[in-house]
Amino acid sequence: MTLAEIVATVGQEMAGRRGEGVVADYIPPLARVDPQRFGLAVITVDGETAEFGDAWLAFSIQSISKVFTLTLALERMGEDLWKRVGREPSGSRFNSIVQLEQERGIPRNPFINAGAIVVTDALLEGRPPAAAIEDIRDVMRGLADTDSIQIDEEVAASEAATGFRNISLAYFMRGFGNVKNAVDDVLNVYFHQCAIRMNCRQLARAGLFLANGGVDPLTSAIVTTSARARRIEAVMMTCGHYDASGEFAFKVGLPGKSGVGGGILAIVPGRAAIAVWSPGLDQSGTSLVGALALERLVSLAGWSAF
Amino acid sequence: MTLAEIVATVGQEMAGRRGEGVVADYIPPLARVDPQRFGLAVITVDGETAEFGDAWLAFSIQSISKVFTLTLALERMGEDLWKRVGREPSGSRFNSIVQLEQERGIPRNPFINAGAIVVTDALLEGRPPAAAIEDIRDVMRGLADTDSIQIDEEVAASEAATGFRNISLAYFMRGFGNVKNAVDDVLNVYFHQCAIRMNCRQLARAGLFLANGGVDPLTSAIVTTSARARRIEAVMMTCGHYDASGEFAFKVGLPGKSGVGGGILAIVPGRAAIAVWSPGLDQSGTSLVGALALERLVSLAGWSAF
Amino acid sequence: MTLAEIVATVGQEMAGRRGEGVVADYIPPLARVDPQRFGLAVITVDGETAEFGDAWLAFSIQSISKVFTLTLALERMGEDLWKRVGREPSGSRFNSIVQLEQERGIPRNPFINAGAIVVTDALLEGRPPAAAIEDIRDVMRGLADTDSIQIDEEVAASEAATGFRNISLAYFMRGFGNVKNAVDDVLNVYFHQCAIRMNCRQLARAGLFLANGGVDPLTSAIVTTSARARRIEAVMMTCGHYDASGEFAFKVGLPGKSGVGGGILAIVPGRAAIAVWSPGLDQSGTSLVGALALERLVSLAGWSAF
Amino acid sequence: MTLAEIVATVGQEMAGRRGEGVVADYIPPLARVDPQRFGLAVITVDGETAEFGDAWLAFSIQSISKVFTLTLALERMGEDLWKRVGREPSGSRFNSIVQLEQERGIPRNPFINAGAIVVTDALLEGRPPAAAIEDIRDVMRGLADTDSIQIDEEVAASEAATGFRNISLAYFMRGFGNVKNAVDDVLNVYFHQCAIRMNCRQLARAGLFLANGGVDPLTSAIVTTSARARRIEAVMMTCGHYDASGEFAFKVGLPGKSGVGGGILAIVPGRAAIAVWSPGLDQSGTSLVGALALERLVSLAGWSAF
Repeated sequence: MTLAEIVATVGQEMAGRRGEGVVADYIPPLARVDPQRFGLAVITVDGETAEFGDAWLAFSIQSISKVFTLTLALERMGEDLWKRVGREPSGSRFNSIVQLEQERGIPRNPFINAGAIVVTDALLEGRPPAAAIEDIRDVMRGLADTDSIQIDEEVAASEAATGFRNISLAYFMRGFGNVKNAVDDVLNVYFHQCAIRMNCRQLARAGLFLANGGVDPLTSAIVTTSARARRIEAVMMTCGHYDASGEFAFKVGLPGKSGVGGGILAIVPGRAAIAVWSPGLDQSGTSLVGALALERLVSLAGWSAF
Repeated sequence: MTLAEIVATVGQEMAGRRGEGVVADYIPPLARVDPQRFGLAVITVDGETAEFGDAWLAFSIQSISKVFTLTLALERMGEDLWKRVGREPSGSRFNSIVQLEQERGIPRNPFINAGAIVVTDALLEGRPPAAAIEDIRDVMRGLADTDSIQIDEEVAASEAATGFRNISLAYFMRGFGNVKNAVDDVLNVYFHQCAIRMNCRQLARAGLFLANGGVDPLTSAIVTTSARARRIEAVMMTCGHYDASGEFAFKVGLPGKSGVGGGILAIVPGRAAIAVWSPGLDQSGTSLVGALALERLVSLAGWSAF
Repeated sequence: MTLAEIVATVGQEMAGRRGEGVVADYIPPLARVDPQRFGLAVITVDGETAEFGDAWLAFSIQSISKVFTLTLALERMGEDLWKRVGREPSGSRFNSIVQLEQERGIPRNPFINAGAIVVTDALLEGRPPAAAIEDIRDVMRGLADTDSIQIDEEVAASEAATGFRNISLAYFMRGFGNVKNAVDDVLNVYFHQCAIRMNCRQLARAGLFLANGGVDPLTSAIVTTSARARRIEAVMMTCGHYDASGEFAFKVGLPGKSGVGGGILAIVPGRAAIAVWSPGLDQSGTSLVGALALERLVSLAGWSAF
Repeated sequence: MTLAEIVATVGQEMAGRRGEGVVADYIPPLARVDPQRFGLAVITVDGETAEFGDAWLAFSIQSISKVFTLTLALERMGEDLWKRVGREPSGSRFNSIVQLEQERGIPRNPFINAGAIVVTDALLEGRPPAAAIEDIRDVMRGLADTDSIQIDEEVAASEAATGFRNISLAYFMRGFGNVKNAVDDVLNVYFHQCAIRMNCRQLARAGLFLANGGVDPLTSAIVTTSARARRIEAVMMTCGHYDASGEFAFKVGLPGKSGVGGGILAIVPGRAAIAVWSPGLDQSGTSLVGALALERLVSLAGWSAF
């Protein structure tokens, strides 16, 4: 089968599953997303693309942004970042505070909320939040090769109004000195980065450098080093889906990162980037149909890290 | 560089690091192993081999045996095994009992001690322990294509005499009904499987089927299905090194499994199996120099899952 | 009201509540106890007694035995016992293993199972289990001033056959060196001490020394020092009811100790000892109607530690 | 010995121990307190008083305020308060967040920080923080029978500037809906109540109602009911000293509450209230010499709850 045929097959197979899972409802703008949506986009390192369904409809990328802020922070701060955040799976929920207490404010990895807040704190670097937000947005525009990416201010505001757990996590780490800027500023940036809206096509395009050793294969832009790209993929593999990271690795076998907006970005090392979107989530906060689609796509294409 | 050159280079580079780390000393036969030992063996799916140092000297494979008993139990019992053991990284030490209590006797994954004990219990199937021990030994002989593999009875006896934590774990799970045979029998088998002695060459050879989709590329024997081989590798990637699994994935980028005897088995999907041995362990119980050697070998060979 | 009137009033008031709670069913001899049973006995330091209902019917004292083995071990070993067991409320279930791991095999207090096992280990002192069992039984006979106290061998055997959690706890502590005798021997004694059968009258009588500064007020026998009696009462107050110790202190306001057989021993400092028995347990394993009866009795008598 | 003689004896005995322990240094106004200070005051229900040392020097009562806000909140809100906070010892540090996650925002008891913040939230009742602060201060003035009690604004401001852990706890509970007012307002009141300055004489006087069944024996003012007074004492006994509550009960045998300012309030049921102050703290945050003084005083006076 060609890539186009595979993507079409997967899309059609998922038709009967649409609507499964539970749409995130902790903020109104996420709660009202149509659960029937399903988008899928693949882009290979050769530039071949294939899409299905709502691949052109933008959604809230949420935690998928953590892959990009991690990349950015590593480029800006270097390996010292790892003194402030670990790279071990946590074995806990995305917003658990338990390990933070035992491990004195050092989050287990950059993909749980606490870790991503530390990364954002590192990126803030004393700038006004608006500057950092613009910076992150512009990086995403650059990676996705389009100026049309926007931040959903309603989402950012809703997160800010209800994100007590994240505020708590940030103050907790501030108490240990591992959040250095004012908590309000850090969370302002954090809530905005989570509120970035992208479609599957843009998201796959933005992640393509990871499939190609850190270099955007279409523009030859060096986003990060080959070693760092590999390592970011390793963290995606072991920590990309909170307390269901092992399950994702087991079933899909690719480095990936999910968000509560229903999106998943997966990387096929050396080959392609895949973005899938379906709003219904499983128990651990990963798109239920999205993960199924990836499992099926990987099986049909013979794509696995293993 | 050729494979032989790469292996030689790595071996020479490690010469200055030999003796680093701390040799396991909880039982006398492990404590008296010469910390200066270093062996490295690679075998590719094409049958090419390269070795360095003490690659022909047998050592106690300890927890590396868990990869093989998992494979065996999956072939014998099928996917139902996963009802009794999870596949998530635990975020805890190899012998932690904390999660077992919260999760009612279901271990997080088959590579922590509790999980491996459940796998062994499943393999026992009501047989006398001696039959199961012989069975496991014979499977290892078959995979390594040699009859010379032995079980070190002194090691098995020492483990039995001091393994209170493992006895405790087994009774704990027995209380939840997740160990079904008599605890003494299960641990008898478990302590014997950990006491298998192999050299690097044999170990790499035994793991080669995992690099080749479940089929031994040299004998064409079908050890397991392609899907299962991928999944076992996924569990090795996310759970192979206890609470340092993320670190190993980050630095080496390959599915691997370490043992407190100082051995590590690593799989290069589609390409090769690697076994390294150096008795000195890091804080989390993985061979310190062994992991360094793998990191270097992978870098020189350009081998990574990512 | 006279003491007799108070006891009669409480007994009558509880008539309508008999049968509430859930009878322990983890072993057959406990499961078949009639849930309608209710006994109450009070004995004052002046020797005045009052009883109600099934006060003369023997039941399995279970964990109430821990008060007496603690007293005995303190007399035999002295304050060094506190190096092996703490005296802090655990905030956890009676058989939790979580804290044992963090606190390296030192149980929080002598009234959770792990702590009581350590106390029993200390009492064993290398003797054959049968000698220690006889010793404990004889001490109980002495304190209760009657030779009619027996150990229920069926209960002891049932506990042994199903007590995997306790075996696990014992091996866990053995791994830390805090159980010194063979686990089988220690648990043999432990399961027998829990299987002592006494009636309310005997139990209140046996605990009377605690209400009188360590001295049996009727025989003038010195059981323990005044300071030690106070301290044992303090541990009963803060740790006597597992993770519901605070609740018991809040509602009853007396040092007490409950057992899953449905008995509770409570001490009124300077005044009296009370034993109540009703087999139905609340969520945390304390007699539901027994605790209600104590709350009411204390209120009518104006007896509180506070 | 007369009460005066006992107090003098204890004071003199402690002279050689002055300065032991570690003065709290997380905020400057506490850090600069003279570690040599020692004050002791006793007041009986008959109005007899005895004092020693710096009994007339005011100090920061800190967590001792939690006894009084609990009393106040119970009077104002009634028993419904217990739906929002438990009464079990936590087995954890005063500012631990671990249990809060497992128990979904319901703190274990009103004397750990999280629990006290909930009590303060209940007291705030939508009033401006300044009104609630004045209210609490006036209650303390009333109980101590003096208008000279002040709040140390420097302490309150320092706590607010560095109290990240408490802010984190409050937002955490806000996420579970168990803090209902704005976190800033609740903590504003909380930090002020902790910053109340009193001397030993005033503190003992303020706590006297607890020794007398809820009624101030000198003014006959009904502060709370007899049942509630007993229950508050029970919570002090089981939870008054964080993860060393069992130890305090064991050694002192009285309901008490300590603060990091070095003060301890202890109640002798039916007899007296005692306040002691010595700034050096033990590992768990209780005045080291203060606790020793209480242990000695109780022994000389024969005062114990048991």
